[in-house]
Amino acid sequence: MAGPLENVRVLDLTTMVAGPVATMMLADQGAEVIKIESPRGDLMRNFGSINNGMAATFLSCNRNKRGLALDIKTPDGIAILKKLVATADVFVQNFRPGAIARMGLGEDVVRAIRPDVIYVSISGFGESGPYAHQRVYDPVIQALCGLADIQTDYATGQPRMVRTIVPDKTTAVTAAQAITAALFARERTGVGQHIRIAMLDTMIAYLWPEGISSLSFVGKELDPARGQMGLDLIFRTEDGYITAGALSDAEWSGMCAALDRADLLEDERFRTAASRAVHGAERREIVSAEIRKWPTREILERLDRAEVPCAPVLTRWQLLEDEQVKANEVIEIHRDTTLGEVRQPRPAARFDRTPAEIRALAPYLGGDNAAILEEIGYSETEIARLGESGVLAGRKPDRT
Amino acid sequence: MAGPLENVRVLDLTTMVAGPVATMMLADQGAEVIKIESPRGDLMRNFGSINNGMAATFLSCNRNKRGLALDIKTPDGIAILKKLVATADVFVQNFRPGAIARMGLGEDVVRAIRPDVIYVSISGFGESGPYAHQRVYDPVIQALCGLADIQTDYATGQPRMVRTIVPDKTTAVTAAQAITAALFARERTGVGQHIRIAMLDTMIAYLWPEGISSLSFVGKELDPARGQMGLDLIFRTEDGYITAGALSDAEWSGMCAALDRADLLEDERFRTAASRAVHGAERREIVSAEIRKWPTREILERLDRAEVPCAPVLTRWQLLEDEQVKANEVIEIHRDTTLGEVRQPRPAARFDRTPAEIRALAPYLGGDNAAILEEIGYSETEIARLGESGVLAGRKPDRT
Repeated sequence: MAGPLENVRVLDLTTMVAGPVATMMLADQGAEVIKIESPRGDLMRNFGSINNGMAATFLSCNRNKRGLALDIKTPDGIAILKKLVATADVFVQNFRPGAIARMGLGEDVVRAIRPDVIYVSISGFGESGPYAHQRVYDPVIQALCGLADIQTDYATGQPRMVRTIVPDKTTAVTAAQAITAALFARERTGVGQHIRIAMLDTMIAYLWPEGISSLSFVGKELDPARGQMGLDLIFRTEDGYITAGALSDAEWSGMCAALDRADLLEDERFRTAASRAVHGAERREIVSAEIRKWPTREILERLDRAEVPCAPVLTRWQLLEDEQVKANEVIEIHRDTTLGEVRQPRPAARFDRTPAEIRALAPYLGGDNAAILEEIGYSETEIARLGESGVLAGRKPDRT
Repeated sequence: MAGPLENVRVLDLTTMVAGPVATMMLADQGAEVIKIESPRGDLMRNFGSINNGMAATFLSCNRNKRGLALDIKTPDGIAILKKLVATADVFVQNFRPGAIARMGLGEDVVRAIRPDVIYVSISGFGESGPYAHQRVYDPVIQALCGLADIQTDYATGQPRMVRTIVPDKTTAVTAAQAITAALFARERTGVGQHIRIAMLDTMIAYLWPEGISSLSFVGKELDPARGQMGLDLIFRTEDGYITAGALSDAEWSGMCAALDRADLLEDERFRTAASRAVHGAERREIVSAEIRKWPTREILERLDRAEVPCAPVLTRWQLLEDEQVKANEVIEIHRDTTLGEVRQPRPAARFDRTPAEIRALAPYLGGDNAAILEEIGYSETEIARLGESGVLAGRKPDRT
């Protein structure tokens, strides 16, 4: 078996990140995902590092998919899409609320063609409410969901963003899980359904467990800023940065030994976990000054021997060469005739019977037009005509 | 149908956050999750805001579960667990690599009792490699996976942590998706399997799409720090903070109108999206100074009317009262005889046929001991004996 979702067919009309990464996870697990783009293509094809017409970010959000590019504002385009709907298990779209129905592909239309389809609508804010009409950007969700509040600069009181698009990517994984659950339910009951997922809702659920939960008990709320990780556990060494943490008595004792500071064990301020918490700032200052004296490699070895949880802070370049990352075989290299050697992270979850795997990189715009149309009964002549009339679109890679 | 995963039974031996939140998602979707704790209980029961013996964080990681507390180091304890294994579809554990086998519950043992079980091992670093033996803390993964590098302070060059446990929670959602995919595959093939998930691998896959992907093309790598969101799009108003972003020409023109600064449209530096990017810092300075002059409510109305994506930066307290959050019915209030009114975020994905829902709050330690043992054939007398001999443990809520 190729993956746990083998023989599941997904029509993917999503663009940008949240939708595409969701369907990529399904594709990694063996689903056949057809990415359907307008003739202009997913905007993500234009951003960042581009090699022979393929953007690294686009590739990393759309691997293992087949590519169909067509103009669904034409009668021929919509007819093609409807023929594909008849073959689909899952239909995913992330247009702004209401847009998909205006395009003639609302749930009623799709379900009339394929009664047990799983119809998925991913949105930024939900389908109604004051922001629902807005175009969504990841920072807007970070502002609304509490994440920017969590990141508030202690010195200035200014809220801050996280520099990776946590709402987009968390929505992706959450949507992939929900789609998979609906596939499971359909397998048992024969019934398909509509799944609606908003990035805002996803982020509140995601942040809540330790980030917002101190507001759980009505009338007994505690300020959520109080409970959160107070000190940034990153320390400068002689030649780099590490993280190290000593919570338990054993770990604290290990840290004192590793730093050659057994005298700190006698310090009343640091005698118990509770008193260490109270004197956290002073402890951090002392520990920082000590760690600063050691080279990274040496202090990490000493801390590890003393059973203190620790690690180097790796840059993304260093990640590629890290021994743990190598032991886990996380980063694979795929050879492609057009793109050369391409790094991709393997799907994180390892299934011992139905392995998820990277079978293909991402499609060029319309890269599978002909093959997909042939499968649903179009002749070579018809396909050529649809290409000439602009219903189908495609872009070949530049050869260099 | 109660949820898409109704009639799935999960034995959950996990503690802390990554494992418990994974199984909570399954529970929200209708699975019957039995949380199995040692007599000391999950450490998370002791942290943060506590109401009548129930910690808000623990509650928010373990709702919708049943609670069984037993000493599996005793023959009676292990016998009970093995009887439960015979009834389970999924077995999840996050002990350090090797520990579960030493406890007598390795995959071979569990599969001999229940051949088609889905056996899930969640770890921090994977099962081998230089860090595999370490106890895992979320900051250690943040340091290793590139997240601290992404957060590097531009001014000082110092890497920084994110103040919410992204690795733990992302691993949770990723694990829930993988388990659901394995349930789907088992439904089609009858075959169970072993899923292994490491937090480190999960985070590299999660960060990659836009955070690391500029390292995709071997020999044509671009520095990933270069491409990332450069400026923090948070602005101070007269009375608070907002976010606003103007990428396209139309949005920029809207922003100039909203700020009463039509003159900026004539500024050569900001004429095109490309030139606006080059002069990003200057543009930000001008926009910041203008936004600073307006009250939050007024400037947001003006920006929204001009179709510029924007939102207030909400504190977590403000989140509770936000109109969009209310429109989405994200935060539910559950009434409990012991805990009073309890806020919880509803499961993010909305299924129209098999709704996920919060049916119960989290169990007290051993709260369902008797009911669960009766179901697998223990008599009241035996249950009492197991309680007296310390095989079963439980703690009643303090009544206040």
